[in-house]
Amino acid sequence: MNNNKISRRHFLGTAAASSVGLMGLAACSGGTQGGQSASAAHAGASNSTAHTTETASSGLSSHVAPGELDKYYGFLSGGQSGEMRVLGVPSMRELMRIPVFNMDSATGWGRTNESREILNAGLTADTREFLRKSNMPVMPNGDLHHPHMSFTDGTYDGRYVYANDKANNRVCRVRCDMMKVDKITEIPNASGIHGLRPQRYPKTGYVFANGEHIVPIPNNGTMLDDPAQNYWAVYTALDGETMQIAWQVMVDGNLDNGDADYQGKYSFSTCYNSEKGVTVTEASANEQDWCVVFNLAEIENGIKNGDFKEINGVKVLDGRKTNAAKNYTRYIPVPNSPHGCNASPDGKYIMLNGKLSPTVTVLDVSKLDDLFAGKIKERDVVVAEPELGLGPLHTAFDGRGNAYTTLFIDSQMVKWNIQKAIDAYASKTKTSDYIIQKLDVHYQPGHNHTTMGETKEADGQWLVSLNKFSKDRFLNVGPLKPECDQLIDISGDEMKLVHDNPTFAEPHDLMLVSANKINPKKTWDRKDPWMWQTTLEQATKDGITLEKDSKIIRQGNKVRVYMTAVAPAFSMPFFEVYEGDEVTVIITNNETIEDLTHGFTLEGHGIAIEISAQATASVTFTANRLGVYWYYCQWFCHALHMEMSGRMIVHKKGEPFLGDKANKAPDANPANTASAPAAASGSK
Amino acid sequence: MNNNKISRRHFLGTAAASSVGLMGLAACSGGTQGGQSASAAHAGASNSTAHTTETASSGLSSHVAPGELDKYYGFLSGGQSGEMRVLGVPSMRELMRIPVFNMDSATGWGRTNESREILNAGLTADTREFLRKSNMPVMPNGDLHHPHMSFTDGTYDGRYVYANDKANNRVCRVRCDMMKVDKITEIPNASGIHGLRPQRYPKTGYVFANGEHIVPIPNNGTMLDDPAQNYWAVYTALDGETMQIAWQVMVDGNLDNGDADYQGKYSFSTCYNSEKGVTVTEASANEQDWCVVFNLAEIENGIKNGDFKEINGVKVLDGRKTNAAKNYTRYIPVPNSPHGCNASPDGKYIMLNGKLSPTVTVLDVSKLDDLFAGKIKERDVVVAEPELGLGPLHTAFDGRGNAYTTLFIDSQMVKWNIQKAIDAYASKTKTSDYIIQKLDVHYQPGHNHTTMGETKEADGQWLVSLNKFSKDRFLNVGPLKPECDQLIDISGDEMKLVHDNPTFAEPHDLMLVSANKINPKKTWDRKDPWMWQTTLEQATKDGITLEKDSKIIRQGNKVRVYMTAVAPAFSMPFFEVYEGDEVTVIITNNETIEDLTHGFTLEGHGIAIEISAQATASVTFTANRLGVYWYYCQWFCHALHMEMSGRMIVHKKGEPFLGDKANKAPDANPANTASAPAAASGSK
Repeated sequence: MNNNKISRRHFLGTAAASSVGLMGLAACSGGTQGGQSASAAHAGASNSTAHTTETASSGLSSHVAPGELDKYYGFLSGGQSGEMRVLGVPSMRELMRIPVFNMDSATGWGRTNESREILNAGLTADTREFLRKSNMPVMPNGDLHHPHMSFTDGTYDGRYVYANDKANNRVCRVRCDMMKVDKITEIPNASGIHGLRPQRYPKTGYVFANGEHIVPIPNNGTMLDDPAQNYWAVYTALDGETMQIAWQVMVDGNLDNGDADYQGKYSFSTCYNSEKGVTVTEASANEQDWCVVFNLAEIENGIKNGDFKEINGVKVLDGRKTNAAKNYTRYIPVPNSPHGCNASPDGKYIMLNGKLSPTVTVLDVSKLDDLFAGKIKERDVVVAEPELGLGPLHTAFDGRGNAYTTLFIDSQMVKWNIQKAIDAYASKTKTSDYIIQKLDVHYQPGHNHTTMGETKEADGQWLVSLNKFSKDRFLNVGPLKPECDQLIDISGDEMKLVHDNPTFAEPHDLMLVSANKINPKKTWDRKDPWMWQTTLEQATKDGITLEKDSKIIRQGNKVRVYMTAVAPAFSMPFFEVYEGDEVTVIITNNETIEDLTHGFTLEGHGIAIEISAQATASVTFTANRLGVYWYYCQWFCHALHMEMSGRMIVHKKGEPFLGDKANKAPDANPANTASAPAAASGSK
Repeated sequence: MNNNKISRRHFLGTAAASSVGLMGLAACSGGTQGGQSASAAHAGASNSTAHTTETASSGLSSHVAPGELDKYYGFLSGGQSGEMRVLGVPSMRELMRIPVFNMDSATGWGRTNESREILNAGLTADTREFLRKSNMPVMPNGDLHHPHMSFTDGTYDGRYVYANDKANNRVCRVRCDMMKVDKITEIPNASGIHGLRPQRYPKTGYVFANGEHIVPIPNNGTMLDDPAQNYWAVYTALDGETMQIAWQVMVDGNLDNGDADYQGKYSFSTCYNSEKGVTVTEASANEQDWCVVFNLAEIENGIKNGDFKEINGVKVLDGRKTNAAKNYTRYIPVPNSPHGCNASPDGKYIMLNGKLSPTVTVLDVSKLDDLFAGKIKERDVVVAEPELGLGPLHTAFDGRGNAYTTLFIDSQMVKWNIQKAIDAYASKTKTSDYIIQKLDVHYQPGHNHTTMGETKEADGQWLVSLNKFSKDRFLNVGPLKPECDQLIDISGDEMKLVHDNPTFAEPHDLMLVSANKINPKKTWDRKDPWMWQTTLEQATKDGITLEKDSKIIRQGNKVRVYMTAVAPAFSMPFFEVYEGDEVTVIITNNETIEDLTHGFTLEGHGIAIEISAQATASVTFTANRLGVYWYYCQWFCHALHMEMSGRMIVHKKGEPFLGDKANKAPDANPANTASAPAAASGSK
């Protein structure tokens, strides 16, 4: 149990604001090598006597034997891959990818009509116009950082997982019953939607989303100049049920990470760049930045009382420091560029992780009423500020009074006792006996997360460290390397590293929830057609029953091809169209058996879509190639899966269709023999 | 050791051609449940006394402790996800995703200029025209099935991995030194490029690619009718060095899977649909289909002698049955719808897996000279046809004389002895003592693969079974479930199942290579700019040195923004353009340290690209939004990574640029302080 007495500020000293100092950091972050303690590579860093236990000789095991199930779902950010990932923990296996802000070749996410509707419905008019001008049917990429589940009464309720897109300023919602996205909302007036957290109590409720970058508001070219005067960051609350924006608050500083309390009264965000700089040196010059505290009741009052400007259709309140009298916000000074923001599971504390300071600042939530009432000063809310090591970024909890903080620069996880840190701060002694253990991680950890650790049911079983660099931890795969997510057993007194897991494209953040909190359905529910509601409405207009009809509807050059799929055949073995037709293929999967997904891939046309059991999916394209093009099922379904195929026959305009002359009537699916031949020749 | 005496043909009986029979199969494949032997769910299936050893109590372990390295690279197909995946084996961890036939949000594959050039350079004129008409800059999806490494002298040489795209008829090549795709070639005249295998001897050499579907040739709308007379499948040989098409052979039947011999004389393909049907029932009606044997020397002679038609720029020989006199091909009858095609590592045999027959047909490669010489008949090449169980799809080898065949319908892996099967066939006894063990797998296995098993260095350590359904093997993730790749220890006398690995979107096939065969570089090599050659040429014309210049080149409304990246700053903290400008951003990563990838994400513009250490990457877009848009590094690089950002300022046409008036000079990267301010205001 040793103390890291080197202050981050001492370490950087006055060089913090100089280019040399910043470049030095770059060398540090990149220069750690091999299996050594990363901190050893840093001149001037602590003489850490860290535990380097690499394998657990006792305690929990990450091994999940064949046929056994994981105990936790992990919802892992896919970072710049734009997707969300579902993990099994402790095995750390990727159970599913949920396409969100990306284009997915397998499922057709971003290509199917249903996914395009979900991707585009919540966009601003500005962005729709941008996409139209740019010939882009959807935003093709995203940067998904922070997946967090909806809460009821301070714990996960298994309904939704929300996440942000930093690249294109969006928030998404995943329905946990289907593990698919049902809503995406673009946040106007903000730039770089970064930190995201749901309200914990009484339920979600609000979803809080941080605008990281400062920009002119509105950002439409009328004002471009003078960032210090004209650029602002914005804090947004969405309604987690409707996914509509409830309100925004204009603030000082770049909003970084956020969290909410366990009482339903306050939410929080760390801020860097109190300087309002526009370069890295400017943005990290000040010795102090702050945490903004948002007073939800006062903000709701402000809205009710009309104390807002409506900008781009959103009610924006002024929560800047100059407007403190309104009690919407308070700015609590904390050391330079705080990063992670984490509420302890007992509901008492908010941890603000120092990043450029070696400290974590601990706020006592119970003192906030007095702060807003003007009875105490901002720093009076601080009840501890333990020095933990270099580069503290995020803190997780075990529900037993201990905290686990990632040290980015030291490449370590530090376990510390919250009450002892509070006692040390109160007694003003220079002790560091709040530090219980330091464990090397590999390398440069960002977020960390414990099982159920963001809820009042924190169970202290597992801790995952999401490390930004893997370097030599895996077989070399060339210049682009995976990240390294490490699984740590925290069930005993000592942290034990048990598993290294490589991951693609930065998993920023993770959420770990007991398996019994989530109950996905095994097939889609025909009575709940939320994904294909619009398609169903069109089918109804066309007189089509999706579950049984195989029919072509032709209106001018618009052709709708309705068919069903049951292994090993599509109900329609071929269909005919004219070159230049706008063709919509609508397929309903009639399988009732679990895990019997079909696909529809149309060769040479850039089209592949997923149709899971009992789902309907559709895709629209222009028949821009003359000839015969096979479609086939791309999701293995049957011993005769390869034979599950059919032909699209594209004729020159005006040529007669073949009808059933040269093509046999479909006979693989007896239910459709009657209707399909008529369908194949269509209602011209 | 029991024999499965139920013949597949007996099982299906005369119902094989009826809809009822096919639907029955669907129920079988979908109906297996729980941890039970899948075969138990099949009425009429064997009373298998299969081993159900679920965990290895001795033998090899899949556990790779933190900090230890895997012993094998696995190249896993990403199926309809369009990507290739690099695994570590035995841990089964995904080490990297290589985007290939997909659009990747993280790396910008499909979005960067460099990737678009690679994706489009090898397309046919027809497809380029289709993309233009369809407003698609690239084909957005693909269906990658069969990754196979280049060979030298019968074993992997670590240079390239090739793979097919069934969806859009392409073949790609991955450079193993960088783990990125460098060439993609579209195959004209063919439909559904499916099976793919490289030449083994003396080296690769040819890459053989199977056209699965029958289509009119040429497929341009002039002929649409009468599949039996007018539709054909085509076999293609590419030159593995140039990725140009060497020749094609028109054949009878749908080409399924292929392989090459160890002598450099013959290649092979299984064929289904000898019927030339266009529905599933038609395509599986015949009791026999065939394996096509291609005689490489005779085909090369035919080309030399001008015995080909040039169709769509490719030399196409007639290798149909009716042209047997030319000795390009031979058609060896095998039971209905053979699927997998696998050469044994001793170079002696080709295994043709029965799919709708319970048998594997074993060809003796040494008899092929006599077959082509007319000295023996087609079936005289067959030296064994063991009955193994229901739905044999693929066979792998341990180098000790044993074969491992996946049984799709029985959900089993069967281990059998090749010599004993040959002896049984020769003696015409009804023995089945060639079967050594049957192991339940979960569920419905397709491809399987052993370590180094496709080479003369087969080492008999690990076998992976790629199972199409996972059902209850993992925590439920909704209607769309992962596949289940199972790791089996084959180092001892008995197969032992040691690990279940979930995978997204059908890994069709896998290749397992000793780690020491591959030596990827740790950073890009500035002296080998293959990925950014075109970008480099433009820079040279612009008078730019990519590694040091920060400069804007303006030509009319075309703007090229050159900058460098070193953590934590881009050399250009902002740049200014006019609305409607066609902007190209070119970034060079000057990091020399391993694992220091940067990114460039431009907010609100659908742009994110990867720039790994020592690489250059670029992206072109139209500035279609007025205002201030931040760009930032999306690949975590430094403690001040979040501050690694800058602004694109988009002005109304004709408005003055701000220049360095309101924006501070860049100072984060001292190397660029001199050039960047001039750059930021540009050469207007």
